[in-house]
Parts: sequence; C-alpha cells; structure tokens
Amino acid sequence: MIRVGINGYGTIGKRIADAIVAQPDMSLTGVAKLTPDYVAMRAQERSYPLYYVDDSSREEFQTLGIDVAGPVDDLVAKSDVIIDATPAGVGEQNRTLYERHDTPALYQGGEDATVAATTFNSRANYDDAAGLDAVRVASCNTTGLTRLLTPLQEQFGIERARATLVRRGGDPNQPSRGPINDALPDPITVPSHHAKQVTDIMDVPIETLAMKVPVTLMHLHSVSITLEEAPTMDAVRDLLTEDPRLFAIPGEVGLDGAGALKELAKDADRPRADVWENCIWDDSLTLDGRELSLFQAIHQEAIVVPENIDAVRAILDTDSRAASRTRTNEQLGIDDPLLPVDSLQADEPSIPAE
Amino acid sequence: MIRVGINGYGTIGKRIADAIVAQPDMSLTGVAKLTPDYVAMRAQERSYPLYYVDDSSREEFQTLGIDVAGPVDDLVAKSDVIIDATPAGVGEQNRTLYERHDTPALYQGGEDATVAATTFNSRANYDDAAGLDAVRVASCNTTGLTRLLTPLQEQFGIERARATLVRRGGDPNQPSRGPINDALPDPITVPSHHAKQVTDIMDVPIETLAMKVPVTLMHLHSVSITLEEAPTMDAVRDLLTEDPRLFAIPGEVGLDGAGALKELAKDADRPRADVWENCIWDDSLTLDGRELSLFQAIHQEAIVVPENIDAVRAILDTDSRAASRTRTNEQLGIDDPLLPVDSLQADEPSIPAE
Amino acid sequence: MIRVGINGYGTIGKRIADAIVAQPDMSLTGVAKLTPDYVAMRAQERSYPLYYVDDSSREEFQTLGIDVAGPVDDLVAKSDVIIDATPAGVGEQNRTLYERHDTPALYQGGEDATVAATTFNSRANYDDAAGLDAVRVASCNTTGLTRLLTPLQEQFGIERARATLVRRGGDPNQPSRGPINDALPDPITVPSHHAKQVTDIMDVPIETLAMKVPVTLMHLHSVSITLEEAPTMDAVRDLLTEDPRLFAIPGEVGLDGAGALKELAKDADRPRADVWENCIWDDSLTLDGRELSLFQAIHQEAIVVPENIDAVRAILDTDSRAASRTRTNEQLGIDDPLLPVDSLQADEPSIPAE
Amino acid sequence: MIRVGINGYGTIGKRIADAIVAQPDMSLTGVAKLTPDYVAMRAQERSYPLYYVDDSSREEFQTLGIDVAGPVDDLVAKSDVIIDATPAGVGEQNRTLYERHDTPALYQGGEDATVAATTFNSRANYDDAAGLDAVRVASCNTTGLTRLLTPLQEQFGIERARATLVRRGGDPNQPSRGPINDALPDPITVPSHHAKQVTDIMDVPIETLAMKVPVTLMHLHSVSITLEEAPTMDAVRDLLTEDPRLFAIPGEVGLDGAGALKELAKDADRPRADVWENCIWDDSLTLDGRELSLFQAIHQEAIVVPENIDAVRAILDTDSRAASRTRTNEQLGIDDPLLPVDSLQADEPSIPAE
Repeated sequence: MIRVGINGYGTIGKRIADAIVAQPDMSLTGVAKLTPDYVAMRAQERSYPLYYVDDSSREEFQTLGIDVAGPVDDLVAKSDVIIDATPAGVGEQNRTLYERHDTPALYQGGEDATVAATTFNSRANYDDAAGLDAVRVASCNTTGLTRLLTPLQEQFGIERARATLVRRGGDPNQPSRGPINDALPDPITVPSHHAKQVTDIMDVPIETLAMKVPVTLMHLHSVSITLEEAPTMDAVRDLLTEDPRLFAIPGEVGLDGAGALKELAKDADRPRADVWENCIWDDSLTLDGRELSLFQAIHQEAIVVPENIDAVRAILDTDSRAASRTRTNEQLGIDDPLLPVDSLQADEPSIPAE
Repeated sequence: MIRVGINGYGTIGKRIADAIVAQPDMSLTGVAKLTPDYVAMRAQERSYPLYYVDDSSREEFQTLGIDVAGPVDDLVAKSDVIIDATPAGVGEQNRTLYERHDTPALYQGGEDATVAATTFNSRANYDDAAGLDAVRVASCNTTGLTRLLTPLQEQFGIERARATLVRRGGDPNQPSRGPINDALPDPITVPSHHAKQVTDIMDVPIETLAMKVPVTLMHLHSVSITLEEAPTMDAVRDLLTEDPRLFAIPGEVGLDGAGALKELAKDADRPRADVWENCIWDDSLTLDGRELSLFQAIHQEAIVVPENIDAVRAILDTDSRAASRTRTNEQLGIDDPLLPVDSLQADEPSIPAE
Repeated sequence: MIRVGINGYGTIGKRIADAIVAQPDMSLTGVAKLTPDYVAMRAQERSYPLYYVDDSSREEFQTLGIDVAGPVDDLVAKSDVIIDATPAGVGEQNRTLYERHDTPALYQGGEDATVAATTFNSRANYDDAAGLDAVRVASCNTTGLTRLLTPLQEQFGIERARATLVRRGGDPNQPSRGPINDALPDPITVPSHHAKQVTDIMDVPIETLAMKVPVTLMHLHSVSITLEEAPTMDAVRDLLTEDPRLFAIPGEVGLDGAGALKELAKDADRPRADVWENCIWDDSLTLDGRELSLFQAIHQEAIVVPENIDAVRAILDTDSRAASRTRTNEQLGIDDPLLPVDSLQADEPSIPAE
Repeated sequence: MIRVGINGYGTIGKRIADAIVAQPDMSLTGVAKLTPDYVAMRAQERSYPLYYVDDSSREEFQTLGIDVAGPVDDLVAKSDVIIDATPAGVGEQNRTLYERHDTPALYQGGEDATVAATTFNSRANYDDAAGLDAVRVASCNTTGLTRLLTPLQEQFGIERARATLVRRGGDPNQPSRGPINDALPDPITVPSHHAKQVTDIMDVPIETLAMKVPVTLMHLHSVSITLEEAPTMDAVRDLLTEDPRLFAIPGEVGLDGAGALKELAKDADRPRADVWENCIWDDSLTLDGRELSLFQAIHQEAIVVPENIDAVRAILDTDSRAASRTRTNEQLGIDDPLLPVDSLQADEPSIPAE
C-alpha cells in the first residue's frame, strides 16, 4: 500500500486526492491546505486528514469547524510519496521540505523544468521516472499534446508539429481572472513555453502559439502535423481510438464545443463533470498526404489527474507502464467511455473515405 | 406507484427524469425527445424508455444505436401524469395531446399563464393544484422569488418587493446564445413578466427589472423588500435558514459568486453539480427598519426540479405539502446541506448585531 | 485663462486633457504619466507637454521617442489647478505634493472621501466647491445616480431610492481584469459604498446593491425610486429631457444595450466613441403612483469628464453653475444630441399614456 | 467623378459610405437600408440620400424623421457602380437587380464565390477586376491573410501556409450573438472555407482552422508559414513594414491585445476607432530556417473598407493598382500610422538578431 500525501488542495489537488482514494494499491495520508474555506470544509466531509501549511491559519480552520491533523511537515514525514499540487512556482519553494524528509516528490507542470530531473507523461516516458527523487508531471496543455503526438510519432514519424493553444482565462471558480472581451497572444513570443515542455518529454520538432480567451471550461487546440510518411485515415483513426485517454468525438451528435462536452460528462455522472480524455473532433480530422490536422479540447482541471496517479507508481517503480495505466483507467472510470463511440463509427462513418 | 412520463428531455427534462427515478412512490414510464443526439445516447445508458416525437427522427435514433419505445402518444397513454419539459411555447402546442388522453399535465414556467389554471410553487400554493387537469410550475426566476417572499410575507407582511434579475444569457451548453460583452435590459419594459408570474402565485406587490448578461452558471437577484413590520435580523435569519431549499451562504468561506457555488456543488458530489437551493449571501442581508435587502443566486438548470416532483403529488393529491416536500428533499439530497451552515453561524456570526 | 495640469494620463486623464484643450477659458499646462507606453506616444502626437512621475522612467520615455518636459513637481508649480486622475488610492498619496505648491486639486471618485472636504457633482452641489483646496469629483456610478436623482428630488421629493449597479468588470483595454462567466455581488455587503458617496453630495435616503459582470462597455443601473408625491409621466419625462447630460433613449430605434449605444456614439463621430450622458431607456420608465422605475446605462470612461471641467471653474469660482455647464456642454458637443430625440417623441410617444 | 451607390448600410456599408465621400474621384449617390433605426437616423445627419429596400418600411422611416429618396432601384439606376454590403447571402439575391440596370457590382466576402467571376484583394490581384460585371471583395479574414501572404510569396515563395483563425463571435452591437464561455471549432471541418477563399485570389497551398470565441473587437490569427527559401529576419521585417496596410506592433509599448489596439485607434482619433491595417505583433515574429510564425489581429469592421474603395477603381479601370492604393491610403488616413513605428524600431530593435 503506497502512502500518498498531497500538498495543495485546490483545483488539481482535490481531484488527485479522490483519485488516490479510488486506487486499491494506494492510501491517502492526508492533504495540506493553505486557505481555510469552503473547499476545506468539504474535504472534512470526505474525512480527509487536513494538515495546515501556515501555523497562523490553524485557528481559522477550527473556527470553520475543521479538525486539523498537524503541520504539513508531519504529512510529508508519514508519506511514501508526496504530490505537490500547489500553485505554479510554489512547488519549487517546497523542495527543501521534501528533500529534508527524503520523500520522493511529484510536481505539477506550472513549475520550472529545473524543479525535477524529468518531465513526465505516462504514455510517452513512464519508465524515465523510476527511482528519481523528483518528477514534474506535465501541464494540462503539454499532457494534451504529448498524448496525441506520441502514438503518431511512433507509428508514422513527425517531421514537424504546429499547435495553436487557445487557453481558458481561468478556472470556473476564479472570478478575478480575465480577460473580458479580448483574445490575447499569451505569451506574444513564439514558440510558447509549451513547445519546450513537450520536448522535455519527447524528441519532436514542435512549435506552439498560445493565446488566452474569456472562457473557463476547456482549452481548445488546433494542431497541424507534418508526418514523415503518409498514413491512411483508417490508420490514423485506429491509432487515436485505441487509447482510452483519447476520445474521438463522433459527428452528428451535437458535441460542438466545451459546453456540450462538459454536459456530456454531467450526463455520464462523471465526478465534478471531469473529462480526463483528450477530446478530438472526428469531423475535424483531415489528411492531405503527410499533413494531418485536427481540433482537440482539453479539460484543464482533470486531464493531469490520471497522469499523477501513474506517476506515483512510476517514481516508486511498483508497476509497469501498461499495468499502471490500465489500473488507473479502470479505477477512475476512463474505461467507461463518455459515448459508445466505436459502435457508432462502425455504423456511420463521419469521415469520408480518402 | 405514480407512473410519470416526461415529454422533453433537455436541460430540465433530464434532471426531472433522474429525480422521478429517485422517488419511492413514483416510476418513470419514459421520456420523449425530439432530437437524436448525445443526450439521447446517455438516456439510453440510463435505460430510460425513449419515445420519439417526430416519426421522421425514428431512424436517426436507431442510427445512433438508440432503441425507440414508440411514439410520444404511447408515453402519454401509459402515464398517470405527464411532465411537459419542452422548450418555452411548445408546451401549449402539446395541450390537446394530453387532453385527448385525459392525462393531467405539468407545464414549465416558459409557457403562458393561460396554459393552466394555476401557477405552482410548492412552498407558496401547493394545495391549489389538487385535482386540476393542468398546472404550470413556476419558472426558475419566479421560483427563486416565491420561495424567498412567501415566508417573509407570512411572518412580517410585505408592503412592496423590488427585484433586479440579472439573468444568464444561456445554459452552459447553448453556444449560439449571447450576448457577448453587453448587459441588456431584457425586457426593457418594467416590470418584467417575472413580477406577473409571482403574483399569479401569491398576493404581493412586486416590481421586477430584468437584464441579460454574458454568464451561463446562475441568475443573480438583488432584492429590496419593504416589510409591513420591522423584524429583528435574528428573526429574518431564522426564517431563511429553516427551509432546506434556502441556503444561507456563510461569510468568510470564499463563496463569492456562481463559479464558487457550482464548485461547492461539485465538491459535494451533487449530480450534475446541481444547486436546488436559493443561495442567499448572509453578508448581504441588510435590515434598515422595515427595509430588507439581499443578494441571491439561482441555478436555472436545477431549482425547478424539486418543485416539479412536489407538483406531481400535488396535482394527484397523494400527499400533503409538508409530506411531499420532506420526501423530495430527502430523496434528492437537499436535506444534506452544501455546507454545515448552522454550526458555523453559531460559532461565528457573519452579520453584525443590529 | 486657467492653467490646468493633469496628473495621471490613463482612461480618465487623457479624456479630461482633450476636454481642457477644447475650453476657451482654459489652457493645458501638461500631463504627468507614470508608464512609457503607446498612450504616451499618442500624447506626444497631440503635443501635450509630458511630465514624468518617476525619475527612472525618464530614459524609457526618451527611448520611445517621447520628449519629457520635466518632473511632475514642475507641472504642479506652473498650474492654477491640478486634476489628479491617477488610479484609485494614488491620489491620496499625491496630496502633500499639491499642498506643498498650494495648488488647488481635484481628485477622482476612487479616492476616499477624506481626501477632500466635499464630493462634487455639477448638477447637485456646484457651489460647495468655491474656494476649497481640494474637491473630490464623484465616481462614474455616483455621477450617474446624482444626475438622475437631483432633479427628481427637487421636483417631487424622494422618500427612498434603490439602485442595483451592474458594473463592468474592466475598461476595454484592461485585459487582466475579470470575471469570466460570473456575476459577482461586489461588494457582497449592502448598501455598497456608492450609496455613501451619493449622500456625501446630496441628502437622499438611498440604498445600492452592486455587482460585477463580464462586460467592458458601460455600467447598467436599475433604479426604483419612491417619490414623495405622485407625478404625471409627462412631468417626469420633461424633467429628464431638459438636461442635456441626460439622454432619453427612444423606443423602436434599436438601441437595446451598451453595444448599440457605443455604436451610436461612433456614428455620431464622438471622440473615442464617448457617451457623456446618462442613457435612460424611455421604454423602461414606469410610474405606479409614487413608484418610479427605470434602466440607465453609464459610460464609465466618459461620464465624469464634463464634471471635471465644471469642477475647475467651481473650485476657482470663475463661473456660475449654469454658465459653466452651458460652456462645457457646448465645447464638448453634449449640446449636439446623439439623436434628435425630442422631435421623435413628439411624433411617436413610446410610452403609453397613464 | 465615379458615382457610387451602396446597398446595405450596416457595419460595413456605413464605413464604406464615409470612405467614398472622402475620395476626390468619387461621389456617393446614396445608401439603401432595410431597417429604420438609429443607424438610419445618423445617416440622415450626414445628409446621405437614403433609399428604401422594402416599400412597407417607407412610412416607418418617415416616422423617425428620416427623408426617403426613393426605392433602391432608383439608387442602382443612377450609380456607375454599386457596392452591395448587405448581410451574407443577401447579395446573391440582389444580382438580378444590378444586372437589370447593367450596373457593375461589388459584393462582400460573405457571398458564395459563384456570385462573381473573381474574388478581389487590391494587393494580390487588382488587375483581375478590370471590366468585370461583378467582383467579390474578400472577407475580413481572407483579406487579412492575403495581405500577409502575397508579399511573402512574391519574395520568398510559400511551400505551405497554416493559419488558425480565432474569430470574434459578433460585432460590438450584435447582442444576440454568442457564444458565452465557449471556444467553438467553427466550422469543425478542416480546412475552413477561408482557405478556399484565399486560393480563389492567389495560388498558395494553405490550410485554415477556424474557431469562434466570446469577443467582439477583432479576429486573432496565428500563422505558421513554410517558405520556399530561408530569409533573414531583417528581410521579413522590411517586407512587412513597407506596406502601410500592415502595422508592425512594436514590443514594450503595452499593445497586448485587441482592447489596447482599439484604444490606440481611439487615441489616434480614427473614425469609429477603426483599424484598417493588419496588426502584426513584432515580438511574435519567429524565424526557424524556412519556418515563419506570427500573430496578427484583424479588425473585422474596418479592414475591407480600403479594399472596397480600390475595387471601385479596379472594376472601372480608372487607376492603376499603385495609384489607387496610394490615393485610398492618403484619403482614409492609413498613411498616418497608428504609431511612429519605424523610428522606434531603429532605436530599439524588439526582435533579437538571428
């Protein structure tokens, strides 16, 4: 039983906590949280041991009726591995804490690459994590790109990939985030840091252009890839549908954007309406010789959750890549697809034959 | 066992269907749906018998792998009561269908008042529905106002109520709805039709000003009420916290808007992150003699669900008001509060004493 | 010739600068600006002497090809009056600077009331400013309310006013401001500080509820006023149309929101598409005995500009209220109405007779 | 003197009308408008002869105090050329009207390619229009792409261009347009129709992916071009700065998005804050061998205006390409740059040397 502690209980941390609890080979030692708020109150309802980060907030937690298990130091001490899910840049500051206890640590993609020896995606480089002190799990955008590009590179080779990342301005509960009524190149420089993070994981020529728009639900990626050899569309589609973490959105069923995709997740009783899969529009798949293009949507709050679970097993070297991914998919429910897509495609191909 | 059929399986219809299934005294005969889409595919996964509205769509349903149980006529025939959850204005066109089968019908608040003899809110006028052929369940905004005003009127009397309804432009999965970057008086005329719908239910002098803004999560109401007598703040707060369908948002816990409220519903594992309660900000409660003011948020997708369930029992006269509301609250989980508010308030009053 | 200097050259400051230049009795001594950017580059194109606030930015201005006239201290020294248009809270910090030079100062409404002996609106309390060292010009929301309430109070008396202020989240060029997809009570407490600022100017019982929504163009106010005596609708309309700073939006011409109003300002060749007037929807005007309700839109970037111009004359006591307002209206072009409204109303009354 | 009539007086039509009036070699015969509204009232203030499209609206115009010059038929009859600026798809229906009068017609890019023998961009294919009966002026997105690609193709050759078009959901005064809080692939299919319209004008391999986001100010394009030969960055920049219809946004001046660009246009006293130029972020310009990438913003309301003016001269063959473009630029004020960019760049290169 792997004892996992989580430092940071926000958008990502609370999802990972629930996912840890669902794994038969893991137990949750507790979660550490900075701010006493409604999120902490609900953690208490789930009976998660709550550790405080800042001594001064101890009393505030108690005022809200929340029992405090101890300082974050205690949490690290009793965990076999710690997942740092603090806001971008804070993880780096926690490094000495984890090192002091000699506890292997997983950081999130908002940290600089220097925080860990390797950047992780379970599909692309699972085996690189074994035995390390620290691993950075790729950010949501990088995870979305890496999942897509890895099988394509393995199968057909990639001469060059180009992606435009249309990023959500904030999460649904971040009311001070903008922009309002503007689409901003962000960063203005090309390629954005996302390309760098992809190449930290896999060896692929890639260029990314990122912008920020006033939406909160999902990121939207447009991707154009020059492959090394020209595949058939059937071969591409087979590749994209064989991984349960890729969801090929069928045409003709009304799934026209992030709002509809999240509605589907609600209808499927997904916890928090989470979408762990890359959502790739089948109708957008276009092949012109070696040129492949498509749209995919990425649920920024959820997509890194299965990767963090896999990273726990990878860094402690308790399971093979395939075994871990299968377990994670089963326990989270990724194996239970959002729609019975394959049968649908058999009956009604939504992409014309080449 | 009351056999309930639902005509219209969209935002409201699918939520009512799930709520019917949760009631021990009701069974779902099936749902009728116009459009073959991902929502229908998920209904099939829930094993809801699906009836078609338009003969021509029959084949399209089958193409999506959806079994069709028969025409909507059959659904009405085998139901003790039908809930019409079709888009605004369509219910009126279905009236002869229900009358032909002599099946009592519940319409939604988007229909004109003429569709039924009475407009319904379970808190305000439950007993008026007994034995009627047709009842209109109040719209989301009217439900929100009626729940709030009824106890205040009973306890203190209302000289005049004024509400500004800041409405969401569309539901989260309605991508063609606007506005973008505008707050529109809608309608421009004052009072808006919402005041009329409130007075169809209860006898209260009220004026409403409605506008539409680019948000999808919840409506936001600002309410100013001149009471007939000056209460104490404790008396007001007691009144507002005794009904489980009113949620008094405590101060100091970070619940600053609709995004946070929906996040709380996700953290509480509410189905589809639904919020069935009026969400009243405790910190906004202000009393100046007989003048009471407050903000409340209304989840447009969810708030009418418990009222529809109560309306089934009310129109068939199978339960008393109190009995029905208690059952509905228990079965849906409204009795399981979003936050343990009362204990919190006892420790930490967020409103200064007057 | 009144020599006017402007400290702060952002959204408000640059508009006031242009307005000063348009007045025959005033000259612009210069403007002081913190940040070297495109706004400063365009100031240079207008030949406005540009003073720096921070010595370290001097070189940066020059790098952008902008000539610097000297430190802000010099600007204050050579001005008969200084208009502080710095961001909220910064004005207070500039107070000693102005006092050191014994230069009368106008502050903006974002400052605390303590910054000056009186808060100013030219319609309501012009005469209070004469001879003061410092005056605070009311904020955009307060200006909008004061302009509306003053004539109503003078004519009919106001028993109580209630306003819901639906505020824009940021100006069009403030891309880091939110919220996205949320309507936030802001502040959650009632009444908001706007009511206090109104009563700093006029003696009226008023309560305000404020919220923030994802729009950038204008604020939208819903207002419900209990008058002391019941007027006729004609009397109300006469009152609201006699002040050129109130624009009664006629019905049936398609002006349904802020987007259309700004479009009208563009079509009318208004500088920067500015709308200096309260925009009151004629179709929203409703009278029920002593109860008057309406919607008005307030262009946050422009509405305080004429008030600042009047405040210059008021604090130096160079003109009477009527004389100053007439001059300001003429020079800015407020006397040139956005639409020939009166003739339209004569032909086609858009409000039914009571 | 070329007599020009304009059929359709909305967002585009009214801007073209003003531009026609500014040309010394053209006169405006009048404008035809369907809807009697505030836009028509302002046309009257500009003394533009207003023709009605629908006989039944004649009286409504008069009710608004607008004089009507006659039916649209009369306008076509007295014009040497007609510019059709009606909504997408309506132009096609007007074709017989123009043909009946044998009046050469310019259509807008919302029409199908079949409406005219050629699609026009003054930089790319000016000479193709001479003597035709009908010409389609390219849409805003296509104009933006064509202006950019033409000089690059002429100078370096283009092996393949890829563009992601992040489109505004509606114009600022279109309050019923969405989406709210969603970024939608639109169309979902790749390439979008924009690529086809570009290749109607120039012979270039191009693929476009289009999406719609909740903004109203500008479109934002991310563009990745594989050139046939590797240029120096200086050569690229020289090319992009030599055309006044391309505006190279300098770094370090705060122009971070569409809001700031429109603010700059306001500060520059541009009519209606129009931006006629492609706005290309200098800091986004990236060159990796033959791979060139950049961001550009396109003001959808304004960018086609100079092209329509040029198209008048092109179809009537009254001026050479160079002569027409120079005249248009001078008369509209495009030659008066938004910022003195060149001098800035000389002092402070914002792109690092390769």
